[in-house]
Amino acid sequence: MRSYRKELWFQTATRRELVHITPHIESALRESGIQEGLCLVNAMHITASVFINDNEPGLHADFEKWLERLAPEKPHSQYAHNGYEDNADAHLKRSVMGREVVIAVTEGKLDLGPWEAVFYGEFDGKRRKRVLVKIIGE
Amino acid sequence: MRSYRKELWFQTATRRELVHITPHIESALRESGIQEGLCLVNAMHITASVFINDNEPGLHADFEKWLERLAPEKPHSQYAHNGYEDNADAHLKRSVMGREVVIAVTEGKLDLGPWEAVFYGEFDGKRRKRVLVKIIGE
Amino acid sequence: MRSYRKELWFQTATRRELVHITPHIESALRESGIQEGLCLVNAMHITASVFINDNEPGLHADFEKWLERLAPEKPHSQYAHNGYEDNADAHLKRSVMGREVVIAVTEGKLDLGPWEAVFYGEFDGKRRKRVLVKIIGE
Repeated sequence: MRSYRKELWFQTATRRELVHITPHIESALRESGIQEGLCLVNAMHITASVFINDNEPGLHADFEKWLERLAPEKPHSQYAHNGYEDNADAHLKRSVMGREVVIAVTEGKLDLGPWEAVFYGEFDGKRRKRVLVKIIGE
Repeated sequence: MRSYRKELWFQTATRRELVHITPHIESALRESGIQEGLCLVNAMHITASVFINDNEPGLHADFEKWLERLAPEKPHSQYAHNGYEDNADAHLKRSVMGREVVIAVTEGKLDLGPWEAVFYGEFDGKRRKRVLVKIIGE
Repeated sequence: MRSYRKELWFQTATRRELVHITPHIESALRESGIQEGLCLVNAMHITASVFINDNEPGLHADFEKWLERLAPEKPHSQYAHNGYEDNADAHLKRSVMGREVVIAVTEGKLDLGPWEAVFYGEFDGKRRKRVLVKIIGE
């Protein structure tokens, strides 16, 4: 069994942003040389998400509106977590979108459906934060 | 290390439907011959879900009502994604329910709790769509 | 490839409770002797969750309030599942929070970000329930 590890760093310009990272994961997989296995991609921060969905700007606008409806940022005072913080909503939003994805690796490629694209979902950005890629297999 | 891959195809009669797929995953595992490892089961489409919950029709009716409350299908015009599409709600519903499950494989069996059952959650059906089963182990 | 399996048992004093279980997972990993691989941690019950978030009591109070807003427990009669049961809300809450986490194992340690902590999320407690830890690797 072989294993491979890589950190990807992101700093978004805005508090919330969805960043398309499929090409980064494909690069990592090529570097690993692994042909058959599983690829874990997870946010290493608890106010961010890694998820798979459509690479379509209209949908991303819908996500922003929808997540603000389910877990609004403001008023900050509505959350007990926001004594010294202002990011409780980011913890909740990330719970909806998920921390991680596990992707099959088949014949040296990410085994994704035709419209599956991997995203880093930032909900408390404007600072450097990390995503972990861990691949195991042969 | 051994690996095994199988696609399961589904076409539901209605737009939204929950399909019990545990027996399909058990068959795939037997075919793989793998005794110890991990089994990834994921929707290959971004308007569908694979999740684990109770195989109980009342609960499935509750899911339908609840997901429609969290991310209503209509009016279609409420979503920016729905310029040429009408399925933005399906992308959101699938985000709540999740893309994938990872199941332990122990002594050649799916290592599930007594009431755990695996479901394909279709939120934009009436066409052929796929689920991926990838098993690695020994 | 090596594999390791352990069950962790919990009985909470209240219906809903978030239990910090990172130390239990770290112990399991040490017992496994595995240095590089993947660690799956999942609830074996469908009214409970395993998730990663902040070990901060204010946030946990926010989760309780937020999940009650998204999927209220009462009135029990609002759910079709609650013919002989009263826990439909627990099935829904667990869907939001997720069944499982997959954690990278690197150099014999859980490869977690600085604030990542693993929780057992109980939404229908006061009885003995299980979490499964399965680790594969080398």
